[in-house]
Amino acid sequence: MGDGRSGKEIDHLIQLLAKLPGLGPRSARRAVLHLIKRREVLLTPLSKALDAAAQNVRICSICGNVDTLEPCGICQNEARNGALICVVEEVGDLWALERAAVFRGKYHVLGGILSALDGIGPDDLNIAGLMERAARIPNGEVVLAMNATVDGQATAHYLADRLNEIGVNSSRLAHGVPVGGELDYLDDGTLAAAFNARRPTE
Amino acid sequence: MGDGRSGKEIDHLIQLLAKLPGLGPRSARRAVLHLIKRREVLLTPLSKALDAAAQNVRICSICGNVDTLEPCGICQNEARNGALICVVEEVGDLWALERAAVFRGKYHVLGGILSALDGIGPDDLNIAGLMERAARIPNGEVVLAMNATVDGQATAHYLADRLNEIGVNSSRLAHGVPVGGELDYLDDGTLAAAFNARRPTE
Repeated sequence: MGDGRSGKEIDHLIQLLAKLPGLGPRSARRAVLHLIKRREVLLTPLSKALDAAAQNVRICSICGNVDTLEPCGICQNEARNGALICVVEEVGDLWALERAAVFRGKYHVLGGILSALDGIGPDDLNIAGLMERAARIPNGEVVLAMNATVDGQATAHYLADRLNEIGVNSSRLAHGVPVGGELDYLDDGTLAAAFNARRPTE
Repeated sequence: MGDGRSGKEIDHLIQLLAKLPGLGPRSARRAVLHLIKRREVLLTPLSKALDAAAQNVRICSICGNVDTLEPCGICQNEARNGALICVVEEVGDLWALERAAVFRGKYHVLGGILSALDGIGPDDLNIAGLMERAARIPNGEVVLAMNATVDGQATAHYLADRLNEIGVNSSRLAHGVPVGGELDYLDDGTLAAAFNARRPTE
C-alpha cells in the first residue's frame, strides 16, 4: 500500500495467502479484507485452526496420511481390513476415496508417481514401505488406485510387477464411463476402455 | 475423512478456508494439503500473520481504512493534503488507488453504496462522518471515486448534492477508454462517454 510503515502486516498476510493454490495477489487481497471484516467469526478462528494444525498434524509413519494421530486414525482402526491396502499417489486421493466411503481397508500414500521426465524414480517414492507392508499380507490384496494418466498407469504397472515378485496379488480400478457421464462428451480412450470392459446385463 | 475423531482439526480448517472468497470446499482441501506439506515456510508463518492481524489490525475511526495504526497511516501522514478527500466504496478501492499512486490527499471509505434494491440508505453508510470532515475543508475538494455502476453513480450524485448544500466542491473520476483498451471491445456506454468528453489534441 506504499505508505511508509503502515499496513506492513497486512501486506505480509496478503503475500502469504497468495501462495495458496487457487489464490493470486488479487484474490488474496479480497480474502484479507473479507477476513478483517469478519474478525470474530473467521479471522480469529482461522488463525487458531492453522496454529492447531501446525502444532498437531503429523504425517503417518505407516501410510503417509496426514492426521493429528500417529499412526493415523485409519491405520489405528481395528475395524478396517489390514490385509487390503489401497495405494494412492497423494493424500488428496485418499481423502477422495474416504469421502466416497467405498473402501474399508488401509491406505498407502506414495507421495507422487514415477516420472522419467521429472526424474522421479522408485527411490523417490514411498515404495520400500509399501513392499514391506505388502510382504506381511501374503493372502491380501493391494489395490493400485493411481490416477488414470500415463505416468499413473506406468507406476501401477511397475508396482504390480514388484508385488508379483513377492507373491502379493494386486488389482487396479476399472476404467469406464463416469456415472452420470454422457458418451458424446467422453474421449476416445475412455470409450474404448468402457467398450472392452463391457459386462453382460443382469 | 469420516474416520471417527481422526482429522477433525483438518476438517475444521478446511471448512474455515472454504469460507474465503474465491475458495470452495475442493480448493480449500488442496490449500490445506499444500499448507501441511509446507509447515515451516507457509503454515506456521500464515498462522502467525493471521494472529498478528487479528490482534493489531484496526478500522481507522477517521476514514474507515484498515491498518495497524489508529488513526491509519494515511490519516496520520502530514505530507498528504488534508483538504482533498477521495471517497471510495470499499477499502479494496482505496488500496487500488494507493497502488496506482495517483492521489496524495486523504480518503473516506463509505463501506458500501446506496441501493434501493438492497435497502441500503444514507444512514447505513459512513456519510455523516464524511459531511463532518467535508465541513472542515470549505476550500477543499471531495473526489467521488465510486465504481462506474448505476448504484455507484447514484451514490456519487447524492453525495455531490449533499456536499453542494454545505458549499464544498466535489468532482468525479473521468469516464473514457481504458489505457491499452481497444475500441472494438468497449461497450457503447463507455464509447459514448469517451466521445462526449473528448479533448483537443495538444
